[in-house]
Amino acid sequence: MTDVIEREIKIKLDIDPSQLVRNLEKEGFEYLGEEEQEDVYLNGTVKDFRDTDEALRIRVVNDKVELTYKSPKMGKDSKSREEITVNLDNKESMIKILEKLGYKSSYVLRKRRISFRKGNFTVCVDNVEGLGNFIEIEGIDVKESDLVSFFQDFKGKFHLNGEPITKSYLELMVNKLDNSNPN
Amino acid sequence: MTDVIEREIKIKLDIDPSQLVRNLEKEGFEYLGEEEQEDVYLNGTVKDFRDTDEALRIRVVNDKVELTYKSPKMGKDSKSREEITVNLDNKESMIKILEKLGYKSSYVLRKRRISFRKGNFTVCVDNVEGLGNFIEIEGIDVKESDLVSFFQDFKGKFHLNGEPITKSYLELMVNKLDNSNPN
Repeated sequence: MTDVIEREIKIKLDIDPSQLVRNLEKEGFEYLGEEEQEDVYLNGTVKDFRDTDEALRIRVVNDKVELTYKSPKMGKDSKSREEITVNLDNKESMIKILEKLGYKSSYVLRKRRISFRKGNFTVCVDNVEGLGNFIEIEGIDVKESDLVSFFQDFKGKFHLNGEPITKSYLELMVNKLDNSNPN
Repeated sequence: MTDVIEREIKIKLDIDPSQLVRNLEKEGFEYLGEEEQEDVYLNGTVKDFRDTDEALRIRVVNDKVELTYKSPKMGKDSKSREEITVNLDNKESMIKILEKLGYKSSYVLRKRRISFRKGNFTVCVDNVEGLGNFIEIEGIDVKESDLVSFFQDFKGKFHLNGEPITKSYLELMVNKLDNSNPN
């Protein structure tokens, strides 16, 4: 339904996520909810999204299904992409149609996400199956410099270490699988 | 949402459609409703559906939007195809995503459809913008011979002439446009 420029930064979480969740609430971050997400990533049988830096994803959250296309990354420090999303009523039928159009499921990512809001920023505490705990900060309609500045303040306030990761969870998963299959 | 084998036969209507509608009601056909449909047909920029006999359509009926993929025709006498449909919340965003995947709008068809049901058959009285009036008879999960036999009885009972048309409205529209642009 939406067609927005979404900017996001993530870091690997080196502290206990439940402690961070308590600290976020203490610091006035608004709790938005907790959900289980299943993401099916598709790739072209002709066009390879690993070469074009695009992504096509079907996300299932509870009974809700959405299809999202993500353009190649546009920024340098943060992960800025054009995103186009539609809401659907059926994951399996959408996958079947996309298969007929030359796209097929390549990876499935499952995560538990706890979300908070502060101003124009959403802070997600993510546990990603097979990858571990992360913080992902997203800004909707914010300048890249605002996101970077919010991120630096956030790291300081909550005593987090680690450099920003611009790779998506999908890319991290693909890297991990590639490394565990060295041949 | 559905994934069914749909069989259909159509003929050009050579009598007044409003008289046929009255006769259908007299003969006990159940009135299902009347609707305005807008169909956007898409075609591949790489894969040409005119060669592969497939179709990809976004249909808007009132506020409802659905995306349907139709496989190549399977039967001889009727137009039997595998159809896969999902319901969506946004036509424009779906078109944008499909453009990113290599498909673009090629034709828009608008029709007013009045539908009736009798047993496993749906009878549609269609006025198609630019093409005229048609009867389309669809059977859900019926044998091709049952559909042909229902169609023959129907023609006799309502004094209709004309041979069954296996071309889709899209194909009829494309033919018409091709003929009006002879170069």
